[in-house]
Amino acid sequence: MTIENGREKLHSRIVGIAESVINGDVRNAARLMRQLDDRDPRAIPVLAELYPHTGKARIIGITGSPGAGKSTLIDGLIQRIRAGGGTVGIVAVDPSSPFTGGAILGDRVRMQRHATDPGVFIRSLATRGRLGGLSASAGMVAQVLDAMGFDRIIIETVGVGQDEVDIVRHADVTVVVVSPGQGDEVQAHKAGVLEIADVLAVNKADLAGVDKTVGELTLAIEMAPQGARKPLVMRCVATDGTGVGELLDEIERLLDVRSRDGKLDSAVRTRSEALVFDLVMERVGGAVERLMKDDGDIRETVAKVYGRRMDPYRAAGLVIGRLKDLKI
Amino acid sequence: MTIENGREKLHSRIVGIAESVINGDVRNAARLMRQLDDRDPRAIPVLAELYPHTGKARIIGITGSPGAGKSTLIDGLIQRIRAGGGTVGIVAVDPSSPFTGGAILGDRVRMQRHATDPGVFIRSLATRGRLGGLSASAGMVAQVLDAMGFDRIIIETVGVGQDEVDIVRHADVTVVVVSPGQGDEVQAHKAGVLEIADVLAVNKADLAGVDKTVGELTLAIEMAPQGARKPLVMRCVATDGTGVGELLDEIERLLDVRSRDGKLDSAVRTRSEALVFDLVMERVGGAVERLMKDDGDIRETVAKVYGRRMDPYRAAGLVIGRLKDLKI
Repeated sequence: MTIENGREKLHSRIVGIAESVINGDVRNAARLMRQLDDRDPRAIPVLAELYPHTGKARIIGITGSPGAGKSTLIDGLIQRIRAGGGTVGIVAVDPSSPFTGGAILGDRVRMQRHATDPGVFIRSLATRGRLGGLSASAGMVAQVLDAMGFDRIIIETVGVGQDEVDIVRHADVTVVVVSPGQGDEVQAHKAGVLEIADVLAVNKADLAGVDKTVGELTLAIEMAPQGARKPLVMRCVATDGTGVGELLDEIERLLDVRSRDGKLDSAVRTRSEALVFDLVMERVGGAVERLMKDDGDIRETVAKVYGRRMDPYRAAGLVIGRLKDLKI
Repeated sequence: MTIENGREKLHSRIVGIAESVINGDVRNAARLMRQLDDRDPRAIPVLAELYPHTGKARIIGITGSPGAGKSTLIDGLIQRIRAGGGTVGIVAVDPSSPFTGGAILGDRVRMQRHATDPGVFIRSLATRGRLGGLSASAGMVAQVLDAMGFDRIIIETVGVGQDEVDIVRHADVTVVVVSPGQGDEVQAHKAGVLEIADVLAVNKADLAGVDKTVGELTLAIEMAPQGARKPLVMRCVATDGTGVGELLDEIERLLDVRSRDGKLDSAVRTRSEALVFDLVMERVGGAVERLMKDDGDIRETVAKVYGRRMDPYRAAGLVIGRLKDLKI
């Protein structure tokens, strides 16, 4: 077999996998997502083949503090999307952990009852990783779901830190879930929450303290500077379904408005940029890690920093000087 | 004035600022930290001068979910460190936000009552930023506090996401604060928590449900694989001080043990590597951002990705091909 024949064979295999995923082959799709989460480079050419078939799904980002009830709420949204005849893929992003290697959490297990429904596909990510890794993985898994033809994709993350802000860049509409009684620090997050939310879903709205939480959030929104996002505050009780249908209606209304005024196009543009940036940074990060691990001179340089015989800024400059020679 | 004279003058100014910071000039230190948070490049040569004077402080990382009571607990630790004659610097890391631009939060305000005590220095970070930016900033501000001669440095972060894991790399000992009644999702974080914690402080130990939380955490620790970190679970009530002295004693005991068995040295080595890596990635990230913003060809490439006429992996390869020509 010539090298060229080998290449052709490989390429037709890649095209074959991509086509099967587009046609809804769940096993190949699941394997591809696992490869993406594991950072297996074999996934990339398949993803490249899938790319022209993406862009049709609408992406809903759902984030919020631990304990706010996100997973129960998502469960309710899935039910309602399915009842309306739509299909939905879910990307659930966990904090990275070497213990779980792909955590199945209590709430996730609850969602898994949709596992036998071909109109629902759930994938948890547990990427341990390098800077930006989570965001890049979530975006890539969402692309696979998009190519598979799911109408809606929900990306679930925990918290409102930098990771979540990065992940939310992948979403067309973002819901931040808060609940009363989470203590003073909902306050602390208010600014970050306002920054990324299209809708603030105040969950557990049957609890005491909900009026206070809604009042505080509303005030914060009123006080936000001109031009800032002014999210709608909505109440719901995910456990009994109260307000969940209204939340989905609002999400769909926003998607519709944005589709008509071109905002979704602009979101896709931003996403394309972010995706390229993430991929570049990930490859550079990998190359820098390898250099710092394997290169004798650079190891010596880092040892000098450790011994306080060289400052880290100079050392960083020396590493950067070596980037030109690197295979990135 | 010749260029050489100018350089010499600039250098002696930098040395002057660095010396004043080492001698405890609070105004210059605060300005330097603000510059670091703002990513002002003028801070870097000063930090390089400070670097040989660092490495004496012991760094305590404190993290946990919103509402766990971290800030109150830190307030108690500050009091006890001061009562024992030690000095302490605090780096409080916020989720990035364009609204606050340097948030002063309710709990932070509480800590600010130490503001007139020269043995305490508190700095909140609000770095909006690029990947890895928060971690790099926190590490650099900790270095300034170290050079100023503080005995202990506390780095406070929210959550247990990737940002926090990165930030914790800067710490010699890490305390994760949890509280009962934070719902099922304390569960969800358990793996991440075990991964980074030396001590698990179960705060609000006067609340109902504390035994269940302690039991679950203890079980999770017992079930952790061999070789995994086995954090000690301690109860406390930060609001009335119960258990806070014991927590500080345990932190000091761990610092002492690690100092004797060389583990702190190894932590410093890991930190040096991480710092150099962060600095490299930050400079590369800035250069890639500028390239993607300013370069016509690359903008055209990203537009093709947006139009689905090129896949993002190929586009990332083209950007990487241009890194060699970049001034990073």
